[in-house]
Amino acid sequence: MKKWYEKSGPQADVVISTRVRLARNLPDIPFPARMTQQQRRQMEETVRQAVQHSQAVLEKPLHFEPMDTLSQLAAISLVERHLASPEFITQRPGRALFLSEDESVSVMVGEEDHVRIQVMQEGMELTQAYRRASALDDALNTSLHFAFDSRLGYLTQCPTNLGTGLRASLMLHLPALQEGGVLGRIAGDLSKLGLTLRGTYGEGSQAVGALYQLSNQVSLGLKEEEALANLQSIAMQIMEQERAARAELAQRLEQQDRIFRSLGILRSACVLSSEEFMKRISAVRMGVSTGLIPDISYDTIHTLIVQTQPATMMQNGRIPPAQRDALRAKLVKEALGCAAK
Amino acid sequence: MKKWYEKSGPQADVVISTRVRLARNLPDIPFPARMTQQQRRQMEETVRQAVQHSQAVLEKPLHFEPMDTLSQLAAISLVERHLASPEFITQRPGRALFLSEDESVSVMVGEEDHVRIQVMQEGMELTQAYRRASALDDALNTSLHFAFDSRLGYLTQCPTNLGTGLRASLMLHLPALQEGGVLGRIAGDLSKLGLTLRGTYGEGSQAVGALYQLSNQVSLGLKEEEALANLQSIAMQIMEQERAARAELAQRLEQQDRIFRSLGILRSACVLSSEEFMKRISAVRMGVSTGLIPDISYDTIHTLIVQTQPATMMQNGRIPPAQRDALRAKLVKEALGCAAK
Repeated sequence: MKKWYEKSGPQADVVISTRVRLARNLPDIPFPARMTQQQRRQMEETVRQAVQHSQAVLEKPLHFEPMDTLSQLAAISLVERHLASPEFITQRPGRALFLSEDESVSVMVGEEDHVRIQVMQEGMELTQAYRRASALDDALNTSLHFAFDSRLGYLTQCPTNLGTGLRASLMLHLPALQEGGVLGRIAGDLSKLGLTLRGTYGEGSQAVGALYQLSNQVSLGLKEEEALANLQSIAMQIMEQERAARAELAQRLEQQDRIFRSLGILRSACVLSSEEFMKRISAVRMGVSTGLIPDISYDTIHTLIVQTQPATMMQNGRIPPAQRDALRAKLVKEALGCAAK
Repeated sequence: MKKWYEKSGPQADVVISTRVRLARNLPDIPFPARMTQQQRRQMEETVRQAVQHSQAVLEKPLHFEPMDTLSQLAAISLVERHLASPEFITQRPGRALFLSEDESVSVMVGEEDHVRIQVMQEGMELTQAYRRASALDDALNTSLHFAFDSRLGYLTQCPTNLGTGLRASLMLHLPALQEGGVLGRIAGDLSKLGLTLRGTYGEGSQAVGALYQLSNQVSLGLKEEEALANLQSIAMQIMEQERAARAELAQRLEQQDRIFRSLGILRSACVLSSEEFMKRISAVRMGVSTGLIPDISYDTIHTLIVQTQPATMMQNGRIPPAQRDALRAKLVKEALGCAAK
């Protein structure tokens, strides 16, 4: 079965993926930061049973991923695949993860909140991803009765999540706007509109390969549908700006040179660091979107981006770090091949 | 008809080409530096007639290249193809060039000496190249009676050419010894043995693409055969050192990476400066010689090196300098293609 990230979806030229996350908490247990060991076990058991009882009505069955016994590499790989937050894997005992086979649905238990429901989809699919997350929320709520206040909405540990508990994010590829140096200004404007633009792995992280997360910041005082519509409408504007900037850049010989050299290097290098790979695949992706490179698909690129992440790559065979960059180069060469001219 | 430099010869992994040059002067006219305009015309006419009368016995017919009316680009291209010295084209009126169709034989008239006979061949061919130059020397001498002193040998304007008037050079590709940083020491040792190691276009020039000229320095007090044997024997030693150094370097992953990336860039760049091309083709050539790159021939590389020289490339169509690097990239891509993997 293909993982969700091995495919591409609507608006794939700019939108890599959609993520919808709902923060929920159990009514009768303190927030995770204040739980006792016993309460932690109780939380895990309660959620586990709720997932078990809901399996029949769930869109996709969820598998339990034991966090205690997971290797460090496997745990980091979860973060690389955006299935768990960096914070979630730092302290694994007493935490649990539920996962659908295509990895599009996950439930973190015992992160900042008791339950974090997450649905990921390829491309721009805010409505559908929210509908799926909401269905899972309903199914679990039948037995868990999530903490809800008629004035504050869903109760969460951090006040910024109060209300809908919804965070919707779009992973955007913005190489042309980044090249143009306008993202700082755009990010500033967005914060006034209740949105944030951040690096690839969330708050404080770098934008690797010109990948940015655009998310709603406000969850209190407006409905889920309003938040999603707001995010979608602004994402469309950024997309148009990015497309216009790409079209202009793609006319320039030095940009074409940069794009084709990036492809040439990816197709021929014997050693590729993760950082270099992301930089070059970003250029290649821009080449694909502007029609300069017709023979490489977004699916191939997306699969490679996940496959070549340091921990994810090393899971399939323990290799010394020194050989990691050589293995990455090999994977990339195999995937991108060499087009006959 | 293929030019001589579109082929490769013996020891092609290290030796690009052999050049043998004989300096000769007419007996009754002052050296070029002291000639009057009339004497200059007389020299040109005398040599012209001698070439004309010798055509029947010459190995290859020689064509007269008018230097006065030659465009600046065409003149620079002669230097790029090693058919004329940089000095020769700076002051063209009163000078003449004779050339065989495959460009392996040339006679410069009125450079530092009245007559400079030059034979070039692919690979290491000192004996054969000298034999051919000597045959042309004999043919011309029948009517020109070159100035010769029984004690000093052939008389030349510069004392360093007195004696045999012979300068034999080998164009060597020494990427591994250059990488190892040992060429300075080797050049020092060579000068004690009466040889010099210099950059691509002779004295004072840079070693572009790790190409070096190894030449005899001494022409007085030893026979032609001794000078050639000496040069050949030392060239063989340098070759062995270069081969050993290459074999060692080719084992290293970072060198393989450098070599394959160079090929990838040459096969995909949209803009290539002459300097970058020479640097990368040098790495590719080392890849060919060490067996890493099996599908590219020395002939292809040698042809490209000449074809993409700035003036030579622009002769076939006047293009603005800004488009030169794009044209070079196009020529290189066409020649190196893209191997199916």
